[in-house]
Amino acid sequence: MLDILSSRPDVWGEIRLVASARSAGKVLQVRGEDVEVKALSPGVFDGVDVAMFDVPDEVSADWAPVAAARGAVAVDNSGAFRMDPDVPLVVPEVNPEAVRERPKGIIANPNCTTLTMMAALGALHRRWRLTQLVVASYQAASGAGRPGIDRLRAELGVVAADETLGSSAGDVRRAVAAALDDGAEDRFPFGAPLAMNVVPFAGSLKDDGWTSEELKVRNESRKILGIPDLKVSATCVRVPVVTTHSLAVHATFASTLTADEARAELAAQPTVVVLDEPEKGVYPTPADVVGEDPTYVGRIRQALDFPDTLDLFVSGDNLRKGAALNTAEIAELVAAELTGG
Amino acid sequence: MLDILSSRPDVWGEIRLVASARSAGKVLQVRGEDVEVKALSPGVFDGVDVAMFDVPDEVSADWAPVAAARGAVAVDNSGAFRMDPDVPLVVPEVNPEAVRERPKGIIANPNCTTLTMMAALGALHRRWRLTQLVVASYQAASGAGRPGIDRLRAELGVVAADETLGSSAGDVRRAVAAALDDGAEDRFPFGAPLAMNVVPFAGSLKDDGWTSEELKVRNESRKILGIPDLKVSATCVRVPVVTTHSLAVHATFASTLTADEARAELAAQPTVVVLDEPEKGVYPTPADVVGEDPTYVGRIRQALDFPDTLDLFVSGDNLRKGAALNTAEIAELVAAELTGG
Repeated sequence: MLDILSSRPDVWGEIRLVASARSAGKVLQVRGEDVEVKALSPGVFDGVDVAMFDVPDEVSADWAPVAAARGAVAVDNSGAFRMDPDVPLVVPEVNPEAVRERPKGIIANPNCTTLTMMAALGALHRRWRLTQLVVASYQAASGAGRPGIDRLRAELGVVAADETLGSSAGDVRRAVAAALDDGAEDRFPFGAPLAMNVVPFAGSLKDDGWTSEELKVRNESRKILGIPDLKVSATCVRVPVVTTHSLAVHATFASTLTADEARAELAAQPTVVVLDEPEKGVYPTPADVVGEDPTYVGRIRQALDFPDTLDLFVSGDNLRKGAALNTAEIAELVAAELTGG
Repeated sequence: MLDILSSRPDVWGEIRLVASARSAGKVLQVRGEDVEVKALSPGVFDGVDVAMFDVPDEVSADWAPVAAARGAVAVDNSGAFRMDPDVPLVVPEVNPEAVRERPKGIIANPNCTTLTMMAALGALHRRWRLTQLVVASYQAASGAGRPGIDRLRAELGVVAADETLGSSAGDVRRAVAAALDDGAEDRFPFGAPLAMNVVPFAGSLKDDGWTSEELKVRNESRKILGIPDLKVSATCVRVPVVTTHSLAVHATFASTLTADEARAELAAQPTVVVLDEPEKGVYPTPADVVGEDPTYVGRIRQALDFPDTLDLFVSGDNLRKGAALNTAEIAELVAAELTGG
């Protein structure tokens, strides 16, 4: 977040850094300046125009309303308020006007998996009206934060050291547990080994076998795109990638469109990059997209058996557009509004 | 294949091993006996009842008809004959009766990606009649054979040795190319680095942006299930897993079904294992399925917005059921027929 604030247009006066009492007093750099971290308290929000929250759900639930009560507009990257009907859920390329309707003084930033496809689908929806989505995800370890990245790297070290692993059922599970978890097989942070594996589970379990992550893709897509009856099925799968989520998307529209028309429409979007020359080996892959701001789209195909339907593959950095970048972009929209811009 | 022939019921008299002239004279073990490899020639098929082919398409195209002309039934694991209307495409759990209609004396074994889901979908189709499939794959390196496995292991060694990789666009690509390909970035056997990455391309490019692998999933599913108008869209993606393909499947049926009914139906199949207790961390992952014969199914959910539709996740060993095991099972059906069994 500090890196992103340092590289974006400098629309801010003071930037105040706030964290738990434990981190108070630390000095961090933002916009090339040293800034001392303040301890979270109601008073830190006094005089603040925009308060960006990048904290667990329960901290946001408690403190975003405090910031709002003190006069700040809270832009929250947690899941605490995303489905609150009085809180807009905003992707600046898709529904920038929604930032102005914020009865609670809070604006929510979407889940990173949903965000991976929103800039692209928003553009296609504007022109052809989206009606159905079937999505399978390829989600990176960093969706589980720094501990997720460290765990994947540690597991990769284990499996790379033994040329026999991956050839019999459970051998990776046993080797990883032995090396990293004292042999215990109930401690895998991703639910199963992630190195040399994929894990069809992300988030927490909700009703009828659906995960929180899969329901977020459905419910947040509907809210951001403004299509309350959008039909969505998602299967969310973790893959051994450090950062950048990818999605295989099967999208059906109300009007007829061709793959060429969709490609041209996507290429015209300022924050979408089309990488779609498979004959030259050109398609998005997460390792080539990590650290980049745009959404990358490729493998755009007209479905052979489903009318008005495209199949495509999307990759986006879940730590940038999927998180801090979109939060900063929302905050900038608010700043522009507050300064009459 | 030799391992599988050695572990299956011993229905064979002589097992003759045949390879190119280069391998002739080698001694290999099958059923615990030493067998000398013979050079491929028309004469080697004389007196043979069933000839199992596990060779490239062009070798099968030339030689399966020779075997058939010499009186053998050719069971072919290549892509040469799969869509030939005079060649049955068989999954013993789904369409065993098809082995008897073989006007060319050739029976084809399906592509490994299609095979991953056929035992499960065949069972569901028998009861509820499948109408639509949307599939995203998580395909293992061994789909590209021994060189694919070796390449993935080499790439994993490169990325595991550098804690910084995976954090900026193209860093994995450059590191892998530098370590394994003299810096050349046009040599990646999987089209891009596979370690710490996923690659949305498998097979070769066909019309309108579809890959051979994606079209096989569509066309072979239709033929095996006997549903010429089955609607199918597939996106095939390679993942850094050694062996065992997985698929996220969105399947629509002509009749109403519940997830519980589907789970019970699948659990009743002798070659399907249901692993579906996500509350206990129980779901299929490829690292836990490699080396196993059955198809593993989990994450079975009733689609929230699509009537008569299930979302599920399937894993199956692409080198066993996906290849040699299904070939051996077809051959055993033929042997039973020839011996009046």
